[in-house]
Amino acid sequence: MHLFYSTSVTNNQITLHDEEKNHCTKVLRKTIGDVVHIIDGRGNLYESRIEAINKHDCLCSVLSSTPQFGTHNYKLTMCVAPTKNSDRFEFFVEKAVEFGIDEIIPIRTDNSERKILKLDRIEKIILSAMKQSYKADKPVLHELTDFADVLNRPFAGTACIAHCYEGTKQKLSHILPHNSTVCIAIGPEGDFSEQEVSQALAKQWQAITLGESRLRTETAAIAAVHSVYSFFC
Amino acid sequence: MHLFYSTSVTNNQITLHDEEKNHCTKVLRKTIGDVVHIIDGRGNLYESRIEAINKHDCLCSVLSSTPQFGTHNYKLTMCVAPTKNSDRFEFFVEKAVEFGIDEIIPIRTDNSERKILKLDRIEKIILSAMKQSYKADKPVLHELTDFADVLNRPFAGTACIAHCYEGTKQKLSHILPHNSTVCIAIGPEGDFSEQEVSQALAKQWQAITLGESRLRTETAAIAAVHSVYSFFC
Repeated sequence: MHLFYSTSVTNNQITLHDEEKNHCTKVLRKTIGDVVHIIDGRGNLYESRIEAINKHDCLCSVLSSTPQFGTHNYKLTMCVAPTKNSDRFEFFVEKAVEFGIDEIIPIRTDNSERKILKLDRIEKIILSAMKQSYKADKPVLHELTDFADVLNRPFAGTACIAHCYEGTKQKLSHILPHNSTVCIAIGPEGDFSEQEVSQALAKQWQAITLGESRLRTETAAIAAVHSVYSFFC
Repeated sequence: MHLFYSTSVTNNQITLHDEEKNHCTKVLRKTIGDVVHIIDGRGNLYESRIEAINKHDCLCSVLSSTPQFGTHNYKLTMCVAPTKNSDRFEFFVEKAVEFGIDEIIPIRTDNSERKILKLDRIEKIILSAMKQSYKADKPVLHELTDFADVLNRPFAGTACIAHCYEGTKQKLSHILPHNSTVCIAIGPEGDFSEQEVSQALAKQWQAITLGESRLRTETAAIAAVHSVYSFFC
Protein backbone atom coordinates (compact mmCIF):
# COMPACT_ATOMS: atom_id res chain seq x y z
CA MET A 1 0.00 0.00 0.00
CA HIS A 2 1.46 3.33 -1.08
CA LEU A 3 0.49 6.31 1.08
CA PHE A 4 0.07 9.90 -0.07
CA TYR A 5 0.07 12.91 2.22
CA SER A 6 -2.25 15.85 2.34
CA THR A 7 -3.39 18.26 5.01
CA SER A 8 -6.13 19.64 2.71
CA VAL A 9 -9.10 17.64 3.93
CA THR A 10 -12.52 19.33 3.88
CA ASN A 11 -16.11 18.12 3.42
CA ASN A 12 -15.03 14.62 2.47
CA GLN A 13 -12.76 15.98 -0.21
CA ILE A 14 -8.97 15.71 -0.15
CA THR A 15 -6.60 17.61 -2.40
CA LEU A 16 -3.16 16.26 -3.28
CA HIS A 17 -0.78 19.09 -4.10
CA ASP A 18 2.46 19.48 -6.07
CA GLU A 19 4.91 16.66 -5.34
CA GLU A 20 2.23 14.35 -3.96
CA LYS A 21 0.02 15.01 -6.99
CA ASN A 22 2.93 14.40 -9.37
CA HIS A 23 3.97 11.22 -7.62
CA CYS A 24 0.39 9.95 -7.72
CA THR A 25 -0.58 10.82 -11.27
CA LYS A 26 2.76 10.91 -13.09
CA VAL A 27 5.11 8.47 -11.37
CA LEU A 28 2.49 5.92 -10.32
CA ARG A 29 0.15 6.85 -13.23
CA LYS A 30 -2.98 6.81 -11.10
CA THR A 31 -5.98 8.23 -12.91
CA ILE A 32 -9.60 9.28 -12.34
CA GLY A 33 -11.57 6.53 -10.60
CA ASP A 34 -8.48 4.91 -9.02
CA VAL A 35 -8.48 4.32 -5.28
CA VAL A 36 -5.58 5.83 -3.32
CA HIS A 37 -4.67 5.92 0.39
CA ILE A 38 -3.95 9.27 1.97
CA ILE A 39 -2.65 10.22 5.43
CA ASP A 40 -3.32 13.66 6.87
CA GLY A 41 -0.53 13.96 9.47
CA ARG A 42 -3.19 14.15 12.20
CA GLY A 43 -3.62 10.43 12.65
CA ASN A 44 -6.17 9.68 9.91
CA LEU A 45 -5.86 7.34 6.96
CA TYR A 46 -8.34 7.92 4.15
CA GLU A 47 -9.28 5.49 1.44
CA SER A 48 -10.09 7.88 -1.39
CA ARG A 49 -11.01 7.94 -5.05
CA ILE A 50 -9.46 10.28 -7.59
CA GLU A 51 -12.21 12.52 -8.98
CA ALA A 52 -10.31 15.16 -10.95
CA ILE A 53 -6.72 15.81 -12.00
CA ASN A 54 -5.69 19.43 -12.52
CA LYS A 55 -2.36 20.96 -13.43
CA HIS A 56 -1.17 21.52 -9.84
CA ASP A 57 -3.44 19.32 -7.80
CA CYS A 58 -5.62 16.29 -7.77
CA LEU A 59 -9.05 16.09 -6.10
CA CYS A 60 -10.14 12.95 -4.28
CA SER A 61 -13.35 11.94 -2.53
CA VAL A 62 -13.24 10.09 0.79
CA LEU A 63 -14.56 6.52 0.68
CA SER A 64 -13.68 5.62 4.26
CA SER A 65 -11.43 6.82 7.05
CA THR A 66 -9.37 5.11 9.77
CA PRO A 67 -8.51 7.29 12.76
CA GLN A 68 -5.39 6.72 14.88
CA PHE A 69 -3.70 4.87 12.06
CA GLY A 70 -0.29 3.60 13.22
CA THR A 71 -0.40 5.45 16.54
CA HIS A 72 1.44 4.31 19.66
CA ASN A 73 0.44 4.13 23.32
CA TYR A 74 3.08 6.47 24.74
CA LYS A 75 4.04 10.11 24.25
CA LEU A 76 7.72 10.63 23.50
CA THR A 77 9.68 13.83 23.00
CA MET A 78 13.35 13.49 22.04
CA CYS A 79 15.74 16.43 22.55
CA VAL A 80 18.83 15.56 20.53
CA ALA A 81 21.91 17.59 19.67
CA PRO A 82 22.35 17.38 15.88
CA THR A 83 25.50 15.52 14.88
CA LYS A 84 28.37 17.11 12.98
CA ASN A 85 27.61 14.74 10.10
CA SER A 86 23.99 15.51 9.22
CA ASP A 87 23.36 12.00 7.82
CA ARG A 88 23.66 10.62 11.33
CA PHE A 89 21.02 12.95 12.78
CA GLU A 90 18.75 12.24 9.81
CA PHE A 91 19.16 8.52 10.36
CA PHE A 92 18.06 8.99 13.97
CA VAL A 93 14.99 10.92 12.78
CA GLU A 94 14.05 8.20 10.31
CA LYS A 95 14.42 5.43 12.90
CA ALA A 96 12.53 7.45 15.54
CA VAL A 97 9.58 7.88 13.17
CA GLU A 98 9.62 4.18 12.28
CA PHE A 99 9.41 3.19 15.94
CA GLY A 100 7.03 5.99 16.86
CA ILE A 101 7.76 9.45 18.23
CA ASP A 102 5.72 12.60 18.96
CA GLU A 103 8.13 15.50 19.11
CA ILE A 104 11.72 16.05 18.04
CA ILE A 105 13.55 19.03 19.53
CA PRO A 106 17.01 19.51 17.99
CA ILE A 107 19.02 21.16 20.76
CA ARG A 108 21.89 23.62 20.83
CA THR A 109 24.23 22.71 23.70
CA ASP A 110 27.50 23.97 25.15
CA ASN A 111 29.51 21.41 23.16
CA SER A 112 27.42 21.45 19.99
CA GLU A 113 29.37 21.67 16.77
CA ARG A 114 26.35 22.02 14.51
CA LYS A 115 24.54 25.31 14.88
CA ILE A 116 22.41 25.20 11.71
CA LEU A 117 19.90 22.59 10.67
CA LYS A 118 18.02 22.07 7.40
CA LEU A 119 14.51 21.63 8.74
CA ASP A 120 12.97 21.23 5.27
CA ARG A 121 15.15 18.24 4.58
CA ILE A 122 14.31 16.65 7.93
CA GLU A 123 10.58 17.26 7.37
CA LYS A 124 10.88 15.29 4.12
CA ILE A 125 12.61 12.44 5.93
CA ILE A 126 9.84 12.42 8.54
CA LEU A 127 7.17 12.25 5.85
CA SER A 128 8.94 9.52 3.93
CA ALA A 129 9.42 7.44 7.10
CA MET A 130 5.74 7.91 8.03
CA LYS A 131 4.66 6.58 4.64
CA GLN A 132 7.15 3.71 4.85
CA SER A 133 6.13 2.67 8.36
CA TYR A 134 2.38 3.30 7.94
CA LYS A 135 1.84 6.09 10.41
CA ALA A 136 -0.66 8.90 9.93
CA ASP A 137 0.37 11.09 12.87
CA LYS A 138 3.14 13.51 11.98
CA PRO A 139 5.67 14.13 14.74
CA VAL A 140 6.32 17.79 15.53
CA LEU A 141 9.79 18.91 14.45
CA HIS A 142 10.91 21.94 16.42
CA GLU A 143 13.49 24.48 15.40
CA LEU A 144 17.01 24.19 16.78
CA THR A 145 16.47 25.28 20.40
CA ASP A 146 18.88 26.17 23.20
CA PHE A 147 18.89 23.34 25.69
CA ALA A 148 18.61 25.96 28.46
CA ASP A 149 15.28 27.04 26.95
CA VAL A 150 14.05 23.44 26.86
CA LEU A 151 14.88 23.16 30.57
CA ASN A 152 12.81 26.27 31.30
CA ARG A 153 9.67 24.88 29.64
CA PRO A 154 7.15 23.08 31.79
CA PHE A 155 6.84 19.39 30.89
CA ALA A 156 3.96 17.21 32.09
CA GLY A 157 5.77 13.85 31.95
CA THR A 158 9.05 12.36 33.08
CA ALA A 159 12.08 14.17 31.70
CA CYS A 160 15.38 12.30 31.45
CA ILE A 161 18.91 13.25 30.52
CA ALA A 162 21.53 10.76 29.31
CA HIS A 163 25.10 11.74 30.13
CA CYS A 164 28.50 10.10 30.58
CA TYR A 165 29.66 11.68 33.85
CA GLU A 166 29.87 9.79 37.12
CA GLY A 167 26.80 9.85 39.34
CA THR A 168 23.60 7.99 40.11
CA LYS A 169 21.76 7.00 36.96
CA GLN A 170 18.75 4.86 36.31
CA LYS A 171 17.97 2.53 33.45
CA LEU A 172 15.04 3.69 31.33
CA SER A 173 13.30 0.38 32.08
CA HIS A 174 13.05 1.48 35.72
CA ILE A 175 11.60 4.88 34.86
CA LEU A 176 9.12 3.96 32.13
CA PRO A 177 6.63 2.02 34.29
CA HIS A 178 5.76 5.23 36.13
CA ASN A 179 4.73 7.42 33.23
CA SER A 180 4.08 6.94 29.53
CA THR A 181 4.77 10.61 28.75
CA VAL A 182 8.52 10.90 28.47
CA CYS A 183 11.08 13.41 27.31
CA ILE A 184 14.68 12.24 26.79
CA ALA A 185 17.68 14.47 26.11
CA ILE A 186 20.77 13.18 24.30
CA GLY A 187 23.87 15.36 24.12
CA PRO A 188 26.33 16.10 21.33
CA GLU A 189 29.55 14.25 20.43
CA GLY A 190 31.33 15.90 23.39
CA ASP A 191 28.44 15.20 25.81
CA PHE A 192 26.45 17.80 27.72
CA SER A 193 28.59 20.10 29.82
CA GLU A 194 28.64 19.37 33.55
CA GLN A 195 26.77 22.63 34.04
CA GLU A 196 23.99 21.55 31.67
CA VAL A 197 23.64 18.26 33.54
CA SER A 198 23.46 20.08 36.90
CA GLN A 199 20.86 22.49 35.57
CA ALA A 200 18.74 19.61 34.28
CA LEU A 201 18.99 17.72 37.57
CA ALA A 202 18.03 20.91 39.43
CA LYS A 203 14.89 21.03 37.27
CA GLN A 204 14.03 17.46 38.36
CA TRP A 205 15.24 15.79 35.19
CA GLN A 206 16.33 12.20 35.88
CA ALA A 207 19.82 11.06 34.93
CA ILE A 208 19.71 7.88 32.87
CA THR A 209 22.23 5.37 31.55
CA LEU A 210 21.87 3.64 28.20
CA GLY A 211 24.18 0.76 29.19
CA GLU A 212 27.90 0.13 29.29
CA SER A 213 28.81 0.82 25.67
CA ARG A 214 30.19 4.11 24.44
CA LEU A 215 27.49 5.12 21.96
CA ARG A 216 27.48 7.81 19.31
CA THR A 217 24.86 10.55 19.69
CA GLU A 218 22.49 9.11 17.10
CA THR A 219 22.97 5.58 18.43
CA ALA A 220 22.12 6.72 21.96
CA ALA A 221 19.07 8.54 20.61
CA ILE A 222 17.90 5.48 18.66
CA ALA A 223 18.51 3.30 21.72
CA ALA A 224 16.37 5.62 23.86
CA VAL A 225 13.50 5.65 21.36
CA HIS A 226 13.67 1.88 20.98
CA SER A 227 13.63 1.42 24.77
CA VAL A 228 10.40 3.39 25.01
CA TYR A 229 8.88 1.68 21.95
CA SER A 230 9.73 -1.82 23.14
CA PHE A 231 8.54 -1.14 26.67
CA PHE A 232 5.09 0.07 25.62
CA CYS A 233 4.46 -1.91 22.41
CA MET B 1 41.81 8.02 23.61
CA HIS B 2 42.52 7.07 20.01
CA LEU B 3 42.78 3.34 19.33
CA PHE B 4 44.96 1.66 16.72
CA TYR B 5 44.47 -1.87 15.45
CA SER B 6 46.97 -4.63 14.93
CA THR B 7 46.84 -8.40 14.94
CA SER B 8 50.67 -8.60 14.90
CA VAL B 9 51.35 -9.12 18.59
CA THR B 10 54.34 -11.29 19.57
CA ASN B 11 56.74 -11.35 22.53
CA ASN B 12 55.49 -8.07 23.90
CA GLN B 13 56.01 -6.37 20.56
CA ILE B 14 53.23 -5.01 18.39
CA THR B 15 53.60 -3.93 14.79
CA LEU B 16 51.30 -1.33 13.24
CA HIS B 17 51.05 -1.84 9.48
CA ASP B 18 50.15 0.31 6.48
CA GLU B 19 47.06 2.45 7.13
CA GLU B 20 47.33 2.13 10.91
CA LYS B 21 51.00 3.07 10.77
CA ASN B 22 50.27 6.03 8.52
CA HIS B 23 47.43 7.23 10.67
CA CYS B 24 49.60 6.97 13.78
CA THR B 25 52.82 8.54 12.53
CA LYS B 26 51.65 10.80 9.69
CA VAL B 27 48.12 11.96 10.52
CA LEU B 28 48.49 12.07 14.31
CA ARG B 29 52.27 12.70 14.12
CA LYS B 30 53.12 10.24 16.87
CA THR B 31 56.83 9.56 17.14
CA ILE B 32 59.34 7.33 18.91
CA GLY B 33 58.74 7.28 22.66
CA ASP B 34 55.06 8.27 22.40
CA VAL B 35 52.49 6.08 24.12
CA VAL B 36 49.70 4.67 21.95
CA HIS B 37 46.74 2.39 22.62
CA ILE B 38 46.30 -0.65 20.40
CA ILE B 39 43.49 -3.22 20.16
CA ASP B 40 44.15 -6.67 18.73
CA GLY B 41 40.66 -7.74 17.67
CA ARG B 42 40.85 -10.60 20.19
CA GLY B 43 39.67 -8.63 23.18
CA ASN B 44 42.96 -7.09 24.34
CA LEU B 45 43.86 -3.44 24.72
CA TYR B 46 47.58 -2.69 24.89
CA GLU B 47 49.17 0.44 26.21
CA SER B 48 52.30 0.58 24.06
CA ARG B 49 55.30 2.74 23.29
CA ILE B 50 56.55 3.46 19.79
CA GLU B 51 60.10 2.08 19.50
CA ALA B 52 60.83 2.31 15.78
CA ILE B 53 59.18 3.78 12.70
CA ASN B 54 59.93 2.12 9.36
CA LYS B 55 58.65 2.84 5.88
CA HIS B 56 55.72 0.40 6.00
CA ASP B 57 55.34 -0.32 9.70
CA CYS B 58 55.86 0.93 13.18
CA LEU B 59 57.17 -1.20 16.07
CA CYS B 60 55.78 -0.76 19.57
CA SER B 61 56.61 -2.35 22.92
CA VAL B 62 53.85 -3.39 25.30
CA LEU B 63 53.70 -1.42 28.57
CA SER B 64 50.52 -3.01 29.89
CA SER B 65 47.57 -4.97 28.63
CA THR B 66 43.86 -5.06 29.47
CA PRO B 67 42.04 -8.26 28.49
CA GLN B 68 38.32 -8.33 27.65
CA PHE B 69 38.32 -4.63 26.87
CA GLY B 70 34.80 -3.50 26.01
CA THR B 71 33.35 -7.02 25.96
CA HIS B 72 29.74 -7.84 26.70
CA ASN B 73 28.05 -10.55 28.74
CA TYR B 74 26.06 -12.21 25.97
CA LYS B 75 26.86 -13.91 22.70
CA LEU B 76 24.91 -12.56 19.74
CA THR B 77 24.87 -13.66 16.12
CA MET B 78 22.78 -11.60 13.71
CA CYS B 79 21.72 -13.09 10.35
CA VAL B 80 20.53 -10.15 8.27
CA ALA B 81 19.57 -9.88 4.62
CA PRO B 82 21.58 -6.99 3.14
CA THR B 83 19.40 -4.08 2.08
CA LYS B 84 19.09 -2.88 -1.52
CA ASN B 85 20.70 0.39 -0.44
CA SER B 86 24.04 -0.67 1.03
CA ASP B 87 24.25 2.38 3.35
CA ARG B 88 21.38 0.96 5.34
CA PHE B 89 23.06 -2.39 5.93
CA GLU B 90 26.31 -0.62 6.80
CA PHE B 91 24.48 1.55 9.30
CA PHE B 92 23.12 -1.58 10.96
CA VAL B 93 26.66 -3.02 11.13
CA GLU B 94 28.01 0.14 12.73
CA LYS B 95 25.22 0.28 15.32
CA ALA B 96 25.53 -3.45 16.06
CA VAL B 97 29.25 -3.05 16.80
CA GLU B 98 28.60 -0.02 19.00
CA PHE B 99 26.11 -1.97 21.12
CA GLY B 100 28.11 -5.20 21.01
CA ILE B 101 27.83 -8.15 18.65
CA ASP B 102 29.82 -11.36 18.04
CA GLU B 103 28.96 -12.57 14.56
CA ILE B 104 27.28 -11.04 11.54
CA ILE B 105 26.01 -13.39 8.86
CA PRO B 106 24.70 -11.55 5.79
CA ILE B 107 22.06 -13.88 4.37
CA ARG B 108 20.78 -14.59 0.88
CA THR B 109 17.03 -15.23 1.04
CA ASP B 110 14.21 -16.01 -1.38
CA ASN B 111 13.22 -12.33 -1.59
CA SER B 112 16.72 -10.83 -1.42
CA GLU B 113 17.45 -8.14 -3.95
CA ARG B 114 21.11 -7.77 -3.09
CA LYS B 115 23.22 -10.75 -4.09
CA ILE B 116 26.67 -9.20 -3.79
CA LEU B 117 28.27 -7.59 -0.75
CA LYS B 118 31.49 -5.60 -0.38
CA LEU B 119 32.97 -7.37 2.63
CA ASP B 120 36.14 -5.20 2.65
CA ARG B 121 34.07 -2.08 3.09
CA ILE B 122 32.04 -3.63 5.89
CA GLU B 123 35.22 -4.85 7.64
CA LYS B 124 36.42 -1.24 7.65
CA ILE B 125 33.15 -0.07 9.16
CA ILE B 126 33.44 -2.73 11.86
CA LEU B 127 36.97 -1.64 12.72
CA SER B 128 36.07 2.01 12.79
CA ALA B 129 33.06 1.35 15.04
CA MET B 130 35.23 -0.78 17.37
CA LYS B 131 37.69 2.08 17.78
CA GLN B 132 34.89 4.60 18.26
CA SER B 133 33.05 2.52 20.86
CA TYR B 134 36.16 1.19 22.65
CA LYS B 135 35.86 -2.50 21.92
CA ALA B 136 38.82 -4.81 21.41
CA ASP B 137 36.95 -7.92 20.30
CA LYS B 138 36.35 -7.98 16.56
CA PRO B 139 33.01 -9.46 15.51
CA VAL B 140 33.23 -12.16 12.87
CA LEU B 141 31.83 -11.05 9.52
CA HIS B 142 30.76 -14.01 7.42
CA GLU B 143 30.40 -14.11 3.66
CA LEU B 144 26.97 -13.75 2.13
CA THR B 145 25.41 -17.12 3.02
CA ASP B 146 22.25 -18.86 1.86
CA PHE B 147 19.74 -18.73 4.70
CA ALA B 148 19.03 -22.42 4.03
CA ASP B 149 22.67 -23.16 4.88
CA VAL B 150 22.44 -21.17 8.10
CA LEU B 151 19.42 -23.27 9.07
CA ASN B 152 21.42 -26.44 8.50
CA ARG B 153 24.23 -25.40 10.86
CA PRO B 154 24.06 -26.55 14.46
CA PHE B 155 23.67 -23.63 16.88
CA ALA B 156 24.24 -23.94 20.62
CA GLY B 157 21.98 -21.09 21.76
CA THR B 158 18.47 -19.86 21.11
CA ALA B 159 17.78 -19.11 17.46
CA CYS B 160 15.01 -16.65 16.57
CA ILE B 161 13.44 -15.49 13.34
CA ALA B 162 11.54 -12.20 12.99
CA HIS B 163 8.82 -12.25 10.34
CA CYS B 164 5.61 -10.41 9.49
CA TYR B 165 3.24 -13.32 8.80
CA GLU B 166 0.42 -14.30 11.13
CA GLY B 167 1.20 -16.85 13.82
CA THR B 168 2.37 -17.19 17.39
CA LYS B 169 5.34 -14.96 18.12
CA GLN B 170 7.19 -14.09 21.28
CA LYS B 171 8.78 -10.85 22.37
CA LEU B 172 12.56 -11.07 22.68
CA SER B 173 12.24 -10.01 26.32
CA HIS B 174 10.48 -13.33 27.01
CA ILE B 175 13.14 -15.40 25.29
CA LEU B 176 16.32 -13.72 26.51
CA PRO B 177 16.09 -14.73 30.19
CA HIS B 178 16.58 -18.38 29.20
CA ASN B 179 19.84 -18.13 27.29
CA SER B 180 22.48 -15.47 26.73
CA THR B 181 23.66 -17.11 23.48
CA VAL B 182 21.29 -15.89 20.82
CA CYS B 183 21.02 -15.91 17.05
CA ILE B 184 18.45 -13.63 15.40
CA ALA B 185 17.47 -13.65 11.73
CA ILE B 186 16.02 -10.57 10.02
CA GLY B 187 14.67 -10.88 6.49
CA PRO B 188 14.93 -8.64 3.44
CA GLU B 189 12.62 -5.78 2.35
CA GLY B 190 10.02 -8.31 1.13
CA ASP B 191 10.32 -10.46 4.32
CA PHE B 192 11.35 -14.10 4.46
CA SER B 193 9.25 -16.36 2.25
CA GLU B 194 6.62 -18.45 4.05
CA GLN B 195 8.69 -21.50 3.15
CA GLU B 196 11.79 -20.05 4.83
CA VAL B 197 9.80 -19.32 7.98
CA SER B 198 8.37 -22.86 8.00
CA GLN B 199 11.83 -24.35 7.53
CA ALA B 200 13.22 -22.28 10.41
CA LEU B 201 10.35 -23.24 12.71
CA ALA B 202 10.87 -26.89 11.78
CA LYS B 203 14.50 -26.50 12.91
CA GLN B 204 13.26 -25.20 16.29
CA TRP B 205 13.88 -21.53 15.58
CA GLN B 206 11.52 -19.33 17.60
CA ALA B 207 9.28 -16.83 15.85
CA ILE B 208 9.64 -13.37 17.37
CA THR B 209 7.91 -10.03 17.04
CA LEU B 210 9.71 -6.70 17.28
CA GLY B 211 6.54 -4.77 18.15
CA GLU B 212 3.65 -3.24 16.26
CA SER B 213 5.52 -0.89 13.92
CA ARG B 214 6.38 -1.74 10.35
CA LEU B 215 10.18 -1.54 10.49
CA ARG B 216 12.73 -1.47 7.70
CA THR B 217 15.22 -4.36 7.60
CA GLU B 218 18.06 -2.41 9.19
CA THR B 219 15.73 -0.88 11.78
CA ALA B 220 14.47 -4.32 12.79
CA ALA B 221 18.06 -5.56 13.00
CA ILE B 222 19.15 -2.59 15.14
CA ALA B 223 16.07 -3.08 17.34
CA ALA B 224 16.97 -6.75 17.85
CA VAL B 225 20.59 -5.98 18.77
CA HIS B 226 19.50 -3.21 21.12
CA SER B 227 16.98 -5.53 22.80
CA VAL B 228 19.75 -8.03 23.57
CA TYR B 229 22.19 -5.29 24.61
CA SER B 230 19.73 -3.57 26.93
CA PHE B 231 18.55 -6.82 28.45
CA PHE B 232 22.02 -7.98 29.43
CA CYS B 233 23.86 -4.71 30.05
